[in-house]
Amino acid sequence: MCGIVGYTGVMETAPILIEGLSRLEYRGYDSAGIAVVSPGNGGPAIEIIKARGRLQALREMTDNGRAVRGTCGIGHTRWATHGEPSVVNAHPHFSKDKKIAVVHNGIIENYKDLKEWLGKKGFEFISETDTEVVAHLLDYYYKGNPLEAICKMLGRVRGSYALGILFQDFPDKIYAVRKDSPLIIGTSDQGNFIASDVPAILKYTKTVCYVDDMDIVELSTDHIRFFNTDQEEIQKEFKTVQWDAKAAEKEGFEHFMLKEIYEQPKAVADTISPRIKDGNVVLDELEMTEEDIKKISRIQMVACGSAYHVCMCGKYILEQMAKIPVDVDLASEFRYRQPILGDNTLVIVISQSGETADSLAALREAKKLGHKVLAIVNVVGSSIAREADSVLYTWAGPEISVATTKAYSTQLAAIYLIALLFGRTREVINQEDYKKYVAELGRLPEKIQRILDEKERIQWLANKFSHAKDVFFIGRGLDYAISMEGSLKLKEISYIHSEAYAAGELKHGTISLIENGVLVIGVATQPELFEKEISNLVEVRSRGASVLGLTLYGNYAMEDIADFTIYVPKTEDYFTTSLAVIPLQLLAYYISVARGLDVDKPRNLAKSVTVE
Amino acid sequence: MCGIVGYTGVMETAPILIEGLSRLEYRGYDSAGIAVVSPGNGGPAIEIIKARGRLQALREMTDNGRAVRGTCGIGHTRWATHGEPSVVNAHPHFSKDKKIAVVHNGIIENYKDLKEWLGKKGFEFISETDTEVVAHLLDYYYKGNPLEAICKMLGRVRGSYALGILFQDFPDKIYAVRKDSPLIIGTSDQGNFIASDVPAILKYTKTVCYVDDMDIVELSTDHIRFFNTDQEEIQKEFKTVQWDAKAAEKEGFEHFMLKEIYEQPKAVADTISPRIKDGNVVLDELEMTEEDIKKISRIQMVACGSAYHVCMCGKYILEQMAKIPVDVDLASEFRYRQPILGDNTLVIVISQSGETADSLAALREAKKLGHKVLAIVNVVGSSIAREADSVLYTWAGPEISVATTKAYSTQLAAIYLIALLFGRTREVINQEDYKKYVAELGRLPEKIQRILDEKERIQWLANKFSHAKDVFFIGRGLDYAISMEGSLKLKEISYIHSEAYAAGELKHGTISLIENGVLVIGVATQPELFEKEISNLVEVRSRGASVLGLTLYGNYAMEDIADFTIYVPKTEDYFTTSLAVIPLQLLAYYISVARGLDVDKPRNLAKSVTVE
Repeated sequence: MCGIVGYTGVMETAPILIEGLSRLEYRGYDSAGIAVVSPGNGGPAIEIIKARGRLQALREMTDNGRAVRGTCGIGHTRWATHGEPSVVNAHPHFSKDKKIAVVHNGIIENYKDLKEWLGKKGFEFISETDTEVVAHLLDYYYKGNPLEAICKMLGRVRGSYALGILFQDFPDKIYAVRKDSPLIIGTSDQGNFIASDVPAILKYTKTVCYVDDMDIVELSTDHIRFFNTDQEEIQKEFKTVQWDAKAAEKEGFEHFMLKEIYEQPKAVADTISPRIKDGNVVLDELEMTEEDIKKISRIQMVACGSAYHVCMCGKYILEQMAKIPVDVDLASEFRYRQPILGDNTLVIVISQSGETADSLAALREAKKLGHKVLAIVNVVGSSIAREADSVLYTWAGPEISVATTKAYSTQLAAIYLIALLFGRTREVINQEDYKKYVAELGRLPEKIQRILDEKERIQWLANKFSHAKDVFFIGRGLDYAISMEGSLKLKEISYIHSEAYAAGELKHGTISLIENGVLVIGVATQPELFEKEISNLVEVRSRGASVLGLTLYGNYAMEDIADFTIYVPKTEDYFTTSLAVIPLQLLAYYISVARGLDVDKPRNLAKSVTVE
Repeated sequence: MCGIVGYTGVMETAPILIEGLSRLEYRGYDSAGIAVVSPGNGGPAIEIIKARGRLQALREMTDNGRAVRGTCGIGHTRWATHGEPSVVNAHPHFSKDKKIAVVHNGIIENYKDLKEWLGKKGFEFISETDTEVVAHLLDYYYKGNPLEAICKMLGRVRGSYALGILFQDFPDKIYAVRKDSPLIIGTSDQGNFIASDVPAILKYTKTVCYVDDMDIVELSTDHIRFFNTDQEEIQKEFKTVQWDAKAAEKEGFEHFMLKEIYEQPKAVADTISPRIKDGNVVLDELEMTEEDIKKISRIQMVACGSAYHVCMCGKYILEQMAKIPVDVDLASEFRYRQPILGDNTLVIVISQSGETADSLAALREAKKLGHKVLAIVNVVGSSIAREADSVLYTWAGPEISVATTKAYSTQLAAIYLIALLFGRTREVINQEDYKKYVAELGRLPEKIQRILDEKERIQWLANKFSHAKDVFFIGRGLDYAISMEGSLKLKEISYIHSEAYAAGELKHGTISLIENGVLVIGVATQPELFEKEISNLVEVRSRGASVLGLTLYGNYAMEDIADFTIYVPKTEDYFTTSLAVIPLQLLAYYISVARGLDVDKPRNLAKSVTVE
């Protein structure tokens, strides 16, 4: 949700800003803009250039940044929250005398009150954004000392923010501050950087510092200073990140999404193999003794989006493999519903970016209630990873496509590992089954690869169904959880209104939408539920629906009622979700391509949702 | 899900069957048919008349039954499960020599195996239904003794069924049997009846017997005999039902749904007032002591459809008012997911009809696990009411419209009563608040009435939005639960693809469907969540959505961002759902009317879902 970047140093800043924004475009692409301190004849002045739509527009306006002179600047790519996507609402935003420029990621919750208050003081607002109040507040409080103005401004705003700020009076300096929105600082001997995320600056440096909430940073060409809100200087540590800059390239694939779909066998193997030692699941990073594991009385899982669907799978898997009751909540609901968690409740928070605003807030809520929080996270050093009691990292590597695929698959793998460890430790799973499960886990990457090898048939089906208007995914039990993810995948990149339903629930209302031509995708991988699911598919078929069945090799009875059937290899019942999701990802991908849409950057969406 | 009726006596049977089916049409209306033993010249013969579509077609074919002679017969109105709606798939079904005729409500799960087996014996199948195997099985086993043939047939079929059977050799007799599908027997001095539900025969008798699973009934003009599956005669008791035959008439309203929407103030008052004594909530029917209530450690709620949405409200309400953690499950999922329920878990099952197949199965599963089950049910004497440990009846009266309104409202009222009793007993609610809540509960009917009095504006809005293609209902917390019900109401009777979303979750994928003209209905009745909800509405608005806000009088800030706003009276935060749902019911109703649809009998749907 919005990306910010900034550079001050010895090189020209605009090309670096544009390059950085291109790496952050997954965070928003409604509009983009840069503010650069231009040397000018009459002394330094801040110049702002903004464009609506994809970054490409800004690239063209500025000749990839080369047309803009100056060595200190900030940039922004927007995911609109307040005000439609337009040039006037694009960032950066100026103060009225154009001596202060601001970029912002997050939401200022009390912006209406502040706008009214500033209005009475004579400030005029030209945009509909919440951000503009920050520029005017800084202007109001600025008396020659940027740090003082920033601290006073912070005293007035409520909400979440990562801010990058330029003051014309300090032409080589960038100021930055954050609360509940991500911000990192990078340093190199060519200059210093701010960014929402590491890939934005990976080309220039691997030495970064994760900014904590309410740290204020002052960057110039050759120094970086940190302050607290009492304007006292504080010390921070820099780390070296491990990611390879190449990981964020398409490497010949048409889209990041397809590349990432193909990376799944490796990502799942990378997540599983280091944790299997001598045929046993070893998860030292959980920092839990056998005693701790046996003491768990419930598990509360919390997440958003696809990670929430992993939780739904997790409920079925953990309840059955470890016999621990599991509750699942959407993070946005959990944080406000005053949850009642009993003693010995383990809270598991899942997030790819580790910066998801609602999930982070849920984590804090759980910790406040005194519970141990285990995070399943992909980005090392992210906020959720740092604040959780323990972290199980998914080694998926950087995920660029907005629609998640490999992060989802590795999160699932993490759940299997936990379920096996807990189930064995609590003696729900006997030694023989345990060995069998662990061995099968090792075979999953190869089975995923087999499905990928047959992608042409899915592509053919996708072309057939690319004009679908309404699609329903139905399943029972674990298949219902898979259906949710399949539906979200299709919906987010194809803009087809699809919906997942527990197969048995369809007839309590939604079946009235079934008519000739509506596509129903029936997921049926669970043996005990197969017949019931078939009954439900017969119901929709007899009302005119086209039925696409998804089941395991061997369940050929599906062909009696489905118009088309997709098969995936057999595996342990609990693990089918890892396989069944692959054709659904491919189906969504190819439908989006067939409809001529921008797969990696779907309309209205952004990765790493750092607003509520 | 399918209605069956039968009459043998001194009057002509066909008009009685048609009249009875018209009262059962809420259970299905894909096709209808009757089988009558016609006197004939060459001895008695069974005549079958069937028609596709609404009962009206059968009415016309038979001159309202007057064209068909005979005093013993059975009838059926169908909700298609196996095989499309067509004449050949309509019931009754014949054996091959046309000497046995069968009507069936339910699903024969092993019909494929039986079909194959019968096929090898030379039986030919003309329909795609599961029911036809019953006719052929009876034929196969019949050697002159109907009871024996029925018992042998019962030994072969798996699934759920209520069956009505005619044998040509016994021209004045009807045989009936049931398992997991509802069946009642009625008796009068003019003859005897079978039916799926009381209203079908209310015009002729109020003396009924609820048939138990696997009871076999033999009816003739002047006697009724009951047998067990060992063919031993057993004794059963008849009861007198209280319902007034007039309650099942439209009384001047254009549709049952509108009539039932208008009955809500009375229904809610009827459900609440008898349980308030001297300013206290008294629920003797729970059969729970103070000690019992204090001992509850968790509540597990289970239901389907709208009753499931009541459970979602119940979770928020019970967790906050009584500080008892609540889990909510769809019945179709609960029964198969091997739920782990801790000690002292109270299970609450909610069902209007008390016959919902999945809910009944969930109740049995919970009892098998050793838990006490409290049922909230509308139909006295229904299966769920009889099998639960205790019952809290909702006094809504008969609900005929497939889309539930007054049953939903009374179920909610029942939840408030339970929450108040539990909250006070467990000392979560202090005496002062308790008094305040009890008093406010009493004012709800009048506040519902006030909303109904302003229905013209909703009608105006409904006309405006009647061409909507995709609608999203969003809310947070309790408002999310209301959104679910609002969305289902719209979906089931207008066939518009609508979907409810937790407002904070929209941006994790589904927001990509938002474009110009998509209608988003934002429910915002909860004060602490109001600002957050507004932020989410701003997000969709800035992407082109039309926004319809639903909030309380006083929250006029909604008008800053909504295109149209509906207000409901203020009440206690927990009770807003009772008020907010009313405009959503009216909106769905008037949109369905504006689209020229059959409000009371939406496509593909049926009330009282007695199949899985």
